[in-house]
Amino acid sequence: MKVEIVAVGTELLLGQIVDTNSSWMGAELAAAGLDSHFQTKVGDNPARIEAVLRQALDRSDAVICCGGLGPTQDDLTREVIAEVMGVDLVLDEAIEARIRDMFGSRGRTMPENNLRQAMVPVGASPIPQQPGTAPGLVCPVGDKVIYAVPGVPYEMKEMVTGTIVDDLRRRAGEQGVIASRVLRTWGMSESGLAEVLADRITELDDGGDATLAFLASGVEGLKVRITAKGVDQDDVVAKLDAEEAVIRPLLGDIVFGLDDDTIESVVLGRLRELGLTLAVAESVTGGYMAGRICAVPGASRVFRGGVVAYTPEMKRSVLGVPDGPVVNDDAALAMAEGVRRVTGADVGLATTGVAGPDSLEGQKPGTVYVGLSLPEGYESGSQLFRMPGDRERVRQFTTISLMNLLRQRLG
Amino acid sequence: MKVEIVAVGTELLLGQIVDTNSSWMGAELAAAGLDSHFQTKVGDNPARIEAVLRQALDRSDAVICCGGLGPTQDDLTREVIAEVMGVDLVLDEAIEARIRDMFGSRGRTMPENNLRQAMVPVGASPIPQQPGTAPGLVCPVGDKVIYAVPGVPYEMKEMVTGTIVDDLRRRAGEQGVIASRVLRTWGMSESGLAEVLADRITELDDGGDATLAFLASGVEGLKVRITAKGVDQDDVVAKLDAEEAVIRPLLGDIVFGLDDDTIESVVLGRLRELGLTLAVAESVTGGYMAGRICAVPGASRVFRGGVVAYTPEMKRSVLGVPDGPVVNDDAALAMAEGVRRVTGADVGLATTGVAGPDSLEGQKPGTVYVGLSLPEGYESGSQLFRMPGDRERVRQFTTISLMNLLRQRLG
Repeated sequence: MKVEIVAVGTELLLGQIVDTNSSWMGAELAAAGLDSHFQTKVGDNPARIEAVLRQALDRSDAVICCGGLGPTQDDLTREVIAEVMGVDLVLDEAIEARIRDMFGSRGRTMPENNLRQAMVPVGASPIPQQPGTAPGLVCPVGDKVIYAVPGVPYEMKEMVTGTIVDDLRRRAGEQGVIASRVLRTWGMSESGLAEVLADRITELDDGGDATLAFLASGVEGLKVRITAKGVDQDDVVAKLDAEEAVIRPLLGDIVFGLDDDTIESVVLGRLRELGLTLAVAESVTGGYMAGRICAVPGASRVFRGGVVAYTPEMKRSVLGVPDGPVVNDDAALAMAEGVRRVTGADVGLATTGVAGPDSLEGQKPGTVYVGLSLPEGYESGSQLFRMPGDRERVRQFTTISLMNLLRQRLG
Repeated sequence: MKVEIVAVGTELLLGQIVDTNSSWMGAELAAAGLDSHFQTKVGDNPARIEAVLRQALDRSDAVICCGGLGPTQDDLTREVIAEVMGVDLVLDEAIEARIRDMFGSRGRTMPENNLRQAMVPVGASPIPQQPGTAPGLVCPVGDKVIYAVPGVPYEMKEMVTGTIVDDLRRRAGEQGVIASRVLRTWGMSESGLAEVLADRITELDDGGDATLAFLASGVEGLKVRITAKGVDQDDVVAKLDAEEAVIRPLLGDIVFGLDDDTIESVVLGRLRELGLTLAVAESVTGGYMAGRICAVPGASRVFRGGVVAYTPEMKRSVLGVPDGPVVNDDAALAMAEGVRRVTGADVGLATTGVAGPDSLEGQKPGTVYVGLSLPEGYESGSQLFRMPGDRERVRQFTTISLMNLLRQRLG
């Protein structure tokens, strides 16, 4: 079953918007065991959209066409698909009613333009999920199919996961279901992970119930994805559980979470269980770590706040760091203790170091000290990390490394 | 002159890497007045790469093929292009010497694999810019051309701006040079800008020396791009100057910078001129604003630091906000004054508000108060903003709105 993706929109060709939709769909198709050999971007031009769709149908079994379903004259996907199917567009009254309701519920009248969105090629059927005004469409063309989905990412995603992937797998004659589970890790390099899991991957290649893949994702951690097929949901979950049980002992304590967990959400959850509050003192990360923590919904139940102490003077006056160098073990710990004192939090974290491009206090860019000040019964202290890369990577790696260290010390 | 982009790499189809290269090249081509109607992603499969290249040559005049120039067996672009050209690959001794030198200068011996990178189709010529081990290639095919560039973004960019855009314009018979200038703005919506500039855009459409385009870019501001063509560099700069002189008065004080300026770099520069230091107190932005400020090289000369006061208690204890509500004018100003006092900075900025999804103190998500505490002679105070959108947009819009307000008050 070969599936091809076509993204429609002149703004994509002009680079005004990066086409992340196709990348996301490519990952979903791969996880579902569906082949995808081509992804094409084409502008809002009917002849060129039609040529691309015809070619895609020619060399693949199914096409997902993303974008061009809005209410304006620039939104041409419906018309072009009807042309490719060799049919007319007709008004779908159920869709019209749904769109009118959406406007009505916000106290507004539907502009007549939006009626265009209720036009459907004869023989096509709407996709049940419709989070916005644009309906998705399943459009059969002979024994092949074009799926039309809007370019708004969350609308497209709901349709792909809610309808399209299952429909494709059914067409491919796949009886069962497929599912993935991501183990989020920190503390081992990608090549280190590959080495630790090499034997297991070989076993699985020789005929196993699951496959494994890695993906380095910056502050989101290094992801290990388990994918399995099964006859039904229970079966596939059992297979994911079984594989997780095999690799967890190989990975050890580097696994900090599953699927959509982030290091911040995991650590905030653990602190909440323990009834502890958190504060951060940042120099090299300059507010980035606090920003990540505050992005977790409900952070305010645990996070008290932080101090960005960007100058040596502020490290001394606000956080009570003693005179002397400010990029070392002692300064990191003093900052962590200081921010606990200032905020009254139970746990204080601190970062100090050299983001680059210049050296500081004779230390090279990428040199980072982190400090942890914890309540009695937990291990306080500081630690040196040497980070590779640029300013952005230094602050991402510092944040996840320090939060992971806290996770390990909280037990 | 129609130019098509082909991005090679299975990791692009699988969504492990988002193809930002094609978007960047699309923007460069558009700025140079070159049409680009299709962008295709294809995996590391020689038959499919060949089919895509042949089709691209068929429907366009030139193809930029990005990726697949590395030293491994997966890197197939050179072989496939030779096939399309109908020629053999030969070893280019100058390229070989250059690659050996690169390894030598790092005290390493070149692995034999890297010799693959010195293989060039007969009739192709290397692109002079070569920042990495992968040489770019100009490969004539009849009266058309394929440019091969590596997938590493900075290597690709150097070759596109250093050689390919000029070569394409020469082939298109364009004699002169083309250049753009971006005016960065904040304080007017995209539709407001379009209205203010509508008459001027009509004049330019009727035959002017420049074109105008808008691009909304979050915390980077709303960009107005002027593009002009001229017989030489002096001529094009004169045309950009002339157009800027026409539209500046129409835009007024919303222009905060040019080209790569950010609101943070502009404000830090101005503070430095005035000999003033800066500190920030953040609630709704949660460290994001400090993080943006610290991303500016040399920020430490002006920025003293900040306080992330995420709880009402911390706003009171550290910043001295009086008892009572913490999402209003008075609290915002008290936070700004408080952070000045705590850090000893000359200028204090503050944010407090509701990031959502829940309401707070009876105020809806998107309600934001900012405070500015400035030295005598400048206007201190606070201001209410009502932001649209999600948590991420609230913090981006709050940051640029507050920094822009400071810019205006500094004069």
